[in-house]
Amino acid sequence: MTSFHFHYTPSGHGRARLGEIHTPHGVIKTPAFIFCATKASIKGVTPSMMKEAHTQIILSNTYHLFLQPGADIVEKAGGLHKFMGWNGPMLTDSGGFQIFSLGHGSVSSEVKGKRTNLRPKTLLKITEEGATFRSYMDGKIHLLTPEKSIETQVKLGADLIVSFDECTPFHVDKNYTARSMRMSHRWGMRSLTAFNDLNTQGSQRLYGIIQGGVYEDLRKESCDFVNTHAFFGHAIGGSLGADKAQMYDVVEMTAKELDPSRPIHLLGIGGVKDIFKGVAQGIDTFDCVHPTRLARHGGALVKTENNTVKGRDHINLNNGWCKNDHTPIEPDCACSTCTHFSKAYLHHLLKAQELLAHTLITAHNVFFMNRLMEAVREALASNALDRIYPTWVND
Amino acid sequence: MTSFHFHYTPSGHGRARLGEIHTPHGVIKTPAFIFCATKASIKGVTPSMMKEAHTQIILSNTYHLFLQPGADIVEKAGGLHKFMGWNGPMLTDSGGFQIFSLGHGSVSSEVKGKRTNLRPKTLLKITEEGATFRSYMDGKIHLLTPEKSIETQVKLGADLIVSFDECTPFHVDKNYTARSMRMSHRWGMRSLTAFNDLNTQGSQRLYGIIQGGVYEDLRKESCDFVNTHAFFGHAIGGSLGADKAQMYDVVEMTAKELDPSRPIHLLGIGGVKDIFKGVAQGIDTFDCVHPTRLARHGGALVKTENNTVKGRDHINLNNGWCKNDHTPIEPDCACSTCTHFSKAYLHHLLKAQELLAHTLITAHNVFFMNRLMEAVREALASNALDRIYPTWVND
Repeated sequence: MTSFHFHYTPSGHGRARLGEIHTPHGVIKTPAFIFCATKASIKGVTPSMMKEAHTQIILSNTYHLFLQPGADIVEKAGGLHKFMGWNGPMLTDSGGFQIFSLGHGSVSSEVKGKRTNLRPKTLLKITEEGATFRSYMDGKIHLLTPEKSIETQVKLGADLIVSFDECTPFHVDKNYTARSMRMSHRWGMRSLTAFNDLNTQGSQRLYGIIQGGVYEDLRKESCDFVNTHAFFGHAIGGSLGADKAQMYDVVEMTAKELDPSRPIHLLGIGGVKDIFKGVAQGIDTFDCVHPTRLARHGGALVKTENNTVKGRDHINLNNGWCKNDHTPIEPDCACSTCTHFSKAYLHHLLKAQELLAHTLITAHNVFFMNRLMEAVREALASNALDRIYPTWVND
Repeated sequence: MTSFHFHYTPSGHGRARLGEIHTPHGVIKTPAFIFCATKASIKGVTPSMMKEAHTQIILSNTYHLFLQPGADIVEKAGGLHKFMGWNGPMLTDSGGFQIFSLGHGSVSSEVKGKRTNLRPKTLLKITEEGATFRSYMDGKIHLLTPEKSIETQVKLGADLIVSFDECTPFHVDKNYTARSMRMSHRWGMRSLTAFNDLNTQGSQRLYGIIQGGVYEDLRKESCDFVNTHAFFGHAIGGSLGADKAQMYDVVEMTAKELDPSRPIHLLGIGGVKDIFKGVAQGIDTFDCVHPTRLARHGGALVKTENNTVKGRDHINLNNGWCKNDHTPIEPDCACSTCTHFSKAYLHHLLKAQELLAHTLITAHNVFFMNRLMEAVREALASNALDRIYPTWVND
């Protein structure tokens, strides 16, 4: 199968580039945003609504699907695309992030430099072999290894899959980060070997993961590792620092070391401002639960002109001022929500605790992100990234 | 405005008839099923999905919308159709059912002959003027009168609206039922007067309600009342007895007394078997929360051939046997759910508590009911109602 390839055109804006990732399920125009269908479902939104909102690619989480319904059931269904009715490009992660996230309390907090530790620890042991953890669902003990992660992802059948790694937390020291990164490299090689054994039909491609925390020399070592191994693409993982400024530094120090001929994904990051910063560093794809999670709390993403609150990327439709506002979230938005429903109606649905609120606001936020990425791609083509920045980022 | 009218053709099957109710928002081919968008939303399903599932007409509840967001906000939005994005025929009830339902504990249980009384009583007083009740939301005290109900429904702006009545419970004696019915008749006349005053644009039509409990002489008296007043249509309300057999008797004794030139609605009843029984008595429209509520509990309506459990109208997708069943709910169903998703996927969504489960199963149940009504109308045209009965009713 020769349907996979990546090509790009450099733009006049730093390392930013326009590209295309070709997969058997379609082409992803990059820079692109990947939406999280954690448990094989975008919460409250059908695949056809996602398509209608111009979505190019979604991802599902191997950790959740490994535990439920299990990869064998998805394989028997004919793979994730058929199981969930998504006939477009798809990515699965390795399961590592969630093992370590749920394991340490929350790596998501760790990655962002917060030391909160409220959840029960389910990570039991990390050895050279893999990670032993307790299921958050039924308490059963599982061992996930690079081989098991790849086997699971091959059964799930997403177009793009990811090497198994240890997602190093933020609060550990440089020695731990270095040791962990090197184990992730060995896990990366085992992932690659397992993938080459199992990807007999050539219907998938593997991304390697870059670790190394906030340390430039380690990030460089990790980039050297992925550059010199036969990964299709590269994903920047691990701790990106204590704040946005450090995150942008880590992304920059990493992205500049990566082989530009391969697509670059930035794991778990996708704020509107982050996207502008990431694109400028040559990031091709982003993923984040933010747009869909925000929607379920009543937050609708808006451009600067539709937002009076500085520094905010959204308006909160729960707020009282929406009660009698009969205009759409964004008057110039062509999404199915803005063309049919007002803020007053969405406010009413939220107050009435109607499920449809989640569906409609999510549909807007998805369309918003895709529209943002379209605008970014257009701007790159005409060297106008800086000019469109204030339209989208309210800072 | 002359867009309202009703006409019908008698069928060879008892009083069953084929008809059309014309409204400014479209034609309802009868017999038809009306879906409940209680708080101006079909739970978890967009208006365009409802249309795609062949829905002709939906209803919203005046009681809920009166309390939140309030009729003034809906009126300012341009009416319910615009507020909720439903560009098709619509009905609102009078608010009476919920006042008395929540008020007595549950009239829904009462109507069905059950004496459970678990909810706090919020109905404070019934007088000739109207019903005083406490809001279930904020405890505020409200008085709903025939005039207030009609004024609210005129502001909401549904095509078909309903007279305010006391929904007489089941456990009261015949004297109470008779006194209550006669007050409902006086409320019906006040509703009609208020309606004629307010419906200045002619954009709505009013249904009168028949009360009288399980008593044939009272039902006849109530039919005489509605027949001799200028209602557009008639709705059979009140207690329909202790069991299905008595309900069918009450529907029969009532329907045969009604002026056949007006459309007849059966309030709150819509089981598959009930529809066959009702259609045979000349009922033109039905409404019930059953198809949509059932879906949210994982129940998918199926025809007899797809159901192994006698007496059941649905399969429970929560059940373990669905886990590895990669066929749709109904193999011959053309709904958006059956054409894209398997029982295994829907089972997974239910187990994972994904919102999308509600959306997808509701879409199937809505399509199922509309397909049933299409089959009923086709059967009436060819005098085949009895022949199709076992296809749909598994008893």
